[in-house]
Amino acid sequence: MKTILLIGIGPGDPDALTLAAIKAIGRADVFFFLEKEGEGKDSLIRFRQQILQTHRGDRPYRTATSQNPVRDHAAKDYVGAVKDWHRQRTAVIKALIESEMADGETAGLLIWGDPSLYDGTIQHLRDIIDESSTELSFEVIPGITSIQMLTARHKIPLNRIGESITITTGRQIEQTDPGLITNAVVMLDSRSAFHRLEGSGDIDIYWGGDVGGPDEVLISGSLDEVAERIDQTIAEQRARKSWIMDNYLLRRRPKQS
Amino acid sequence: MKTILLIGIGPGDPDALTLAAIKAIGRADVFFFLEKEGEGKDSLIRFRQQILQTHRGDRPYRTATSQNPVRDHAAKDYVGAVKDWHRQRTAVIKALIESEMADGETAGLLIWGDPSLYDGTIQHLRDIIDESSTELSFEVIPGITSIQMLTARHKIPLNRIGESITITTGRQIEQTDPGLITNAVVMLDSRSAFHRLEGSGDIDIYWGGDVGGPDEVLISGSLDEVAERIDQTIAEQRARKSWIMDNYLLRRRPKQS
Repeated sequence: MKTILLIGIGPGDPDALTLAAIKAIGRADVFFFLEKEGEGKDSLIRFRQQILQTHRGDRPYRTATSQNPVRDHAAKDYVGAVKDWHRQRTAVIKALIESEMADGETAGLLIWGDPSLYDGTIQHLRDIIDESSTELSFEVIPGITSIQMLTARHKIPLNRIGESITITTGRQIEQTDPGLITNAVVMLDSRSAFHRLEGSGDIDIYWGGDVGGPDEVLISGSLDEVAERIDQTIAEQRARKSWIMDNYLLRRRPKQS
Repeated sequence: MKTILLIGIGPGDPDALTLAAIKAIGRADVFFFLEKEGEGKDSLIRFRQQILQTHRGDRPYRTATSQNPVRDHAAKDYVGAVKDWHRQRTAVIKALIESEMADGETAGLLIWGDPSLYDGTIQHLRDIIDESSTELSFEVIPGITSIQMLTARHKIPLNRIGESITITTGRQIEQTDPGLITNAVVMLDSRSAFHRLEGSGDIDIYWGGDVGGPDEVLISGSLDEVAERIDQTIAEQRARKSWIMDNYLLRRRPKQS
């Protein structure tokens, strides 16, 4: 039997780690890393290395790194392209499990945020278990999400009294009737889909870039008034370090009666 | 200036605490508790006492306890009754701040799960700051939610590829067209609203009682097949210890093509 630990490490604040994550880091014989080449995300790699240094100390461990497959962003069939990318990622992880672990060993994967939210690794492992004869089990250790860090930093509740909240993507926002959006957290938005709701007049936005990390920026207010400032901030961060991880909450103000 | 720390402590697993929560526990001069009388939730009170013992050790601290106002569950106007209850809770917290803290002190409130999700305390503090002349600031320390513990224990992703997910309440589920529900986490459901979707034929449920805690029970499968077993489990737990904290994910299976 081989065991995989999917360890949620939070959105970039070393103090967002849970005790369960630290214990899991202590249990692993080997850590698997899937890296993207040439994306200038060195600070993200360093962050994970520091976490291992801090919480493993002098206790030895192995690491095994594979290249993360690149999704075809030009593909017309979005779901098909994502499924294809997931199949490639599954194959990469399967190869790591087969070649880099002995029977009885435990491998750790450090996952940004929480392994259950917009991360495919749980499904990859389920697929590997379904398709192969390898005796494999896995555990999921929850981590603080960037959504939780966003609301904590803005000091706002995620939902108002009795209200539902939808967690969604920039792509979904672009395809949704703006009138149906009352309370939504948007993730994975590389195209600033919030512009779609500009001019509504009654939408507030609570936006965060790299929440929890050293480059954290927070902007909130009426969407119509702050949208341009958010655009500028995203452009500045991209120019400076080539990437930004941002998310935001869109909230419709109640009608005045 | 007085400072309040809203400390998310997770859903009942001592290892779900973050390092930030532990640091915050170390900073407080006094801890405020709002207790409900006679609800047999002694184990929940003990859990918080144990957290303080573990993470404060021998360092002294004060506690101040007030009774938690009881919401009028019989009121016809749900939102009105909740708002009324929130006003009472705000007054109780304000009284604690005024009478139990000196200027310059820091108070901690241990919040189940995450302070941003279905907990009113952030809004109470905002209201106190808006309405009073007291110099008051507060910080929010995110905690692992019972939703995250639910998906971790069931080893499932919260969302499928590209899909949105709605976090909602039993009350909302009862008022929603069942056909519109494809992926929803239901919290605060004391009336087993999932029965509303029975007979759909294509809904899976991932249910958890007291996830993360010592009484954790997990049930998953086709809603039509497991609904009765969930009812029985809820009844058993209620009979044994008078309460249960449960939540669940409803997920519609994709159409076979």
